[in-house]
Amino acid sequence: MADETTIVLYLFKRLHQLGIRSVHGVPGDYNLVALDNLPEAGLDWVGNCNELNAGYAADGYARIKGISALITTFGVGELSALAGVAGAYSERVPVVHIVGVPSTLSQKSGALLHHTLGNGDFSVFANMSRNISEVLVTLNDPTIAARDIDRALKACYISARPVYIALPTDMVLKKIPSRGLDTPIDLSLPINDVETETDVLESVTKIIYEANNAIILVDACAIRHRVVEEVRQLIDKSQLPAFATPMSKGAIDETNPRFGGVYIGDISRPDVKQAVESADLVISIGALKSDFNSGGFTYRTHTKTTIEFHSDHIKVGYATYPGIGMKSVLQKLLATLDFNKIRHSESAKSDPPALVNEEYGKFSGEEVTHSFFWPFIGKNWLQEKDVIITETGTANFGILETRFPKGVTSISQVLWGSIGYSVGACQGAALAVKESDPSRRVILIVGDGSFQLTAQEVSTMIRHGLKPIIVLINNDGYTIERMIHGEDASYNDIQSWKHTKILETFGAKEGEYENYVVKTRKEVEELFSKGNTFSKADKIQVKQRESYIDTKHRIYNLYCVGTILM
Amino acid sequence: MADETTIVLYLFKRLHQLGIRSVHGVPGDYNLVALDNLPEAGLDWVGNCNELNAGYAADGYARIKGISALITTFGVGELSALAGVAGAYSERVPVVHIVGVPSTLSQKSGALLHHTLGNGDFSVFANMSRNISEVLVTLNDPTIAARDIDRALKACYISARPVYIALPTDMVLKKIPSRGLDTPIDLSLPINDVETETDVLESVTKIIYEANNAIILVDACAIRHRVVEEVRQLIDKSQLPAFATPMSKGAIDETNPRFGGVYIGDISRPDVKQAVESADLVISIGALKSDFNSGGFTYRTHTKTTIEFHSDHIKVGYATYPGIGMKSVLQKLLATLDFNKIRHSESAKSDPPALVNEEYGKFSGEEVTHSFFWPFIGKNWLQEKDVIITETGTANFGILETRFPKGVTSISQVLWGSIGYSVGACQGAALAVKESDPSRRVILIVGDGSFQLTAQEVSTMIRHGLKPIIVLINNDGYTIERMIHGEDASYNDIQSWKHTKILETFGAKEGEYENYVVKTRKEVEELFSKGNTFSKADKIQVKQRESYIDTKHRIYNLYCVGTILM
Repeated sequence: MADETTIVLYLFKRLHQLGIRSVHGVPGDYNLVALDNLPEAGLDWVGNCNELNAGYAADGYARIKGISALITTFGVGELSALAGVAGAYSERVPVVHIVGVPSTLSQKSGALLHHTLGNGDFSVFANMSRNISEVLVTLNDPTIAARDIDRALKACYISARPVYIALPTDMVLKKIPSRGLDTPIDLSLPINDVETETDVLESVTKIIYEANNAIILVDACAIRHRVVEEVRQLIDKSQLPAFATPMSKGAIDETNPRFGGVYIGDISRPDVKQAVESADLVISIGALKSDFNSGGFTYRTHTKTTIEFHSDHIKVGYATYPGIGMKSVLQKLLATLDFNKIRHSESAKSDPPALVNEEYGKFSGEEVTHSFFWPFIGKNWLQEKDVIITETGTANFGILETRFPKGVTSISQVLWGSIGYSVGACQGAALAVKESDPSRRVILIVGDGSFQLTAQEVSTMIRHGLKPIIVLINNDGYTIERMIHGEDASYNDIQSWKHTKILETFGAKEGEYENYVVKTRKEVEELFSKGNTFSKADKIQVKQRESYIDTKHRIYNLYCVGTILM
Repeated sequence: MADETTIVLYLFKRLHQLGIRSVHGVPGDYNLVALDNLPEAGLDWVGNCNELNAGYAADGYARIKGISALITTFGVGELSALAGVAGAYSERVPVVHIVGVPSTLSQKSGALLHHTLGNGDFSVFANMSRNISEVLVTLNDPTIAARDIDRALKACYISARPVYIALPTDMVLKKIPSRGLDTPIDLSLPINDVETETDVLESVTKIIYEANNAIILVDACAIRHRVVEEVRQLIDKSQLPAFATPMSKGAIDETNPRFGGVYIGDISRPDVKQAVESADLVISIGALKSDFNSGGFTYRTHTKTTIEFHSDHIKVGYATYPGIGMKSVLQKLLATLDFNKIRHSESAKSDPPALVNEEYGKFSGEEVTHSFFWPFIGKNWLQEKDVIITETGTANFGILETRFPKGVTSISQVLWGSIGYSVGACQGAALAVKESDPSRRVILIVGDGSFQLTAQEVSTMIRHGLKPIIVLINNDGYTIERMIHGEDASYNDIQSWKHTKILETFGAKEGEYENYVVKTRKEVEELFSKGNTFSKADKIQVKQRESYIDTKHRIYNLYCVGTILM
């Protein structure tokens, strides 16, 4: 019948409606029949090298396209992806994790199938995903499958967190009505209680008018819960100084003179610290105060003089308003605030922090230092709308010293902090960019230690014709760990790889790739200049940098001194 | 004080007492201080490329040395290892998983640390390991830490399953008494109830004497629960025909004329099937009847005429004797049975199955087929005491057609069946062999699809001077999945790699490695011959085979016809 479809097609067409065009994952015997149905729903299959990488890639894809899907197989496959999915949960990235599981009949009989623990317990793996999934559904009943799919996808989008959908092999092709597909999934946010919201708006308005030098502090959940546009308008209309955090870098237009820099508590640059901590009102939007994101919990701001906007509650001083979402409140504030009434102190009116690293220029030699490199690429090489993925490690700290051109998207994993993440995420982000705006460059900056965890995903990039610029910082080991502990410890050493052979080994064709090795500051300056072949990003490229980091403990002053192979 | 030690040293010295000399894992900020203490306990650090690979490697190491240890870091690290640990749980391999976790103080305060889900819940990751760990302990109390360590390690060894030990950063160097270390951990099995055991022995003896053509069927748990020697004696003394299963291949001396082949239910070779299923008594030792291990649950043996020996119970026909362990029962049977009373039927007395694949020799051309390759290497190339690791896929089925010389150890993952396992396991097994008997060769046979999941662990082999022979079957994709579903489906394709560049890329030094590519049967015959450089295994070697598999469905007749790059 024309108004029938199958469970798997219903699911896949819903993914397509949400904007997903490519699905990440690894085939496995419990998901093969489902995979047959991707083309009919207009979806491409990525086919990652392993499931962990696929999880990271799905995370990267979702950060560009808003949501992503990951398909794994029961047990062996899904468990390999868990660290990736947990990262998405932690960092609030909406990933739909679809797991092909044994038939409902096998599950009922407790058969001793392969990919099980050999004890007939089929629920154990789903349970391992329970605490890293906003919703967990098993599509074992055709009469409610469509409803469960819609419920899971809505939860994924609204909560900005992964959901887990188990698809038993005997349910894949079960017929269900298709009419649900005619109506898009309702992705609207819950409506705030009118009276409470009115009260919040009154309080917030009054406090903003009373402040003499308020500042705006934008954090990760402003991006995840999709209020970046409201934040942009608030900054433009209020002309208040606005600061990012490590996790929200890129959310504020850094060419806007109101952009003040990155606040990280005690390890902020002094001018940023002064500006934020002397404010008599902090308008905090989407805060996520993890240790790395907050300079080790060293915020010197005060609850009494802070308004916190969150996706599911608002805090005004010590008062909490549960169930009040920020998007609606921000939109109403934009409509009702009299921006002429907002006072700007002398300090707030002064020029925003220059973001010139005080160490910049101190090295006149040939050494490539972090304090040289990161501001340098911001000033000389990054372009508007670049997508830049930095790895947990020195790159995640270094990038805070890079001033972005307009429209740059920054991807990193500051809270979850899994090394190896960036290589998978780069594959996903590059594919999403290819689908949505191929004019954007995708740049990966990763250390040699982290690179080894997930290196084979470069092969997937080659396979799909993706052309990221891969900058490989070659420090001979786990540099960020040497900073934390065990500076000379052999456990922070790694095997040396020939990075310039990577692309060839993973199947890049002669003439379709380039390798560069840069060791000196001059070579870096020449390579990272606008308009040359390297910067055009029309090929997949690997640059290997050899360097080491000294042991200064001001994180934004990490030096990456040393020779560079890039 | 001289009679004090630290929690971490107590733990590490216990590992050393159990025979562990190398510890697998990846450094991470919550385990670095612990790692400092490895040398003092006489332990080497492996330093794998990622945690999943480390989990597989620890599994491979334990299968040679009896037990192994794996160290990961909280959240990001431990979750990446879960599929490896779950595999060890499923396949019954004792791996001690030690996880460096945040301090007890951070845990109590619910701090929003990196590597968390950002919700202050520190128990969620340990809970994810609960169902794949025999015992789970957190060393958060110095007064009971030694007891908890001993309890966990004993459980690991006795149950032959992973245990999870969480080590908070502030507990690592806490002082505890060292005197416990003077007494080795009691690893003795629980003692069987005397009266029940006597009853079992009487029943079993009577049934064995009454049988006319009994056979012995040895399965995985005979290896895991350490009764291989008892089984050997039982076969020698009884002269009954003895059969292996896919999971116990190698446990029976295959040069013993009593060895009858591999029983896999309906997909056994006809002579094996006939011999096992016509027996009037099956003496089953350590059975683990998973789907792949039992030919898809097609055993045609009868409960009434089967005695099952298990680690924690005995079944005689329909009667179960819980709590009676097989080791003691087998030892008593060996001591008390009058082996002259055992009858041998004509069929059982006849020559054991020839193990010559009926397809062997049918191909006179240049094609390399599975039916040629697997018997060929058994007859012409394998040596006594070789360790052979085969990947989930065609290799795991093909190896069943290879007759082993004496003392060959076979490592595979028939029940858990995670692709990529064999590369990590090879690293662990090769290191264990280097420590225990470097004269043994280590051979890895893996397909190109599976290889991509964990390829970087070849780098760890190079780093530690390990010299496995790596045979890479190049079938351009996931061949075993093509057999199951989607023969022509693009999701079973993979990116083509230049396998002969792998060793160089991962840092093997010129002159210290060799690559071979063999495409024809003649080339295979020349390469896989005793005494040549390739067979000496004094270097790390990769052979790449290009082939494909036809679609015959008798698994032991899978053909690997085609050109071969090896």
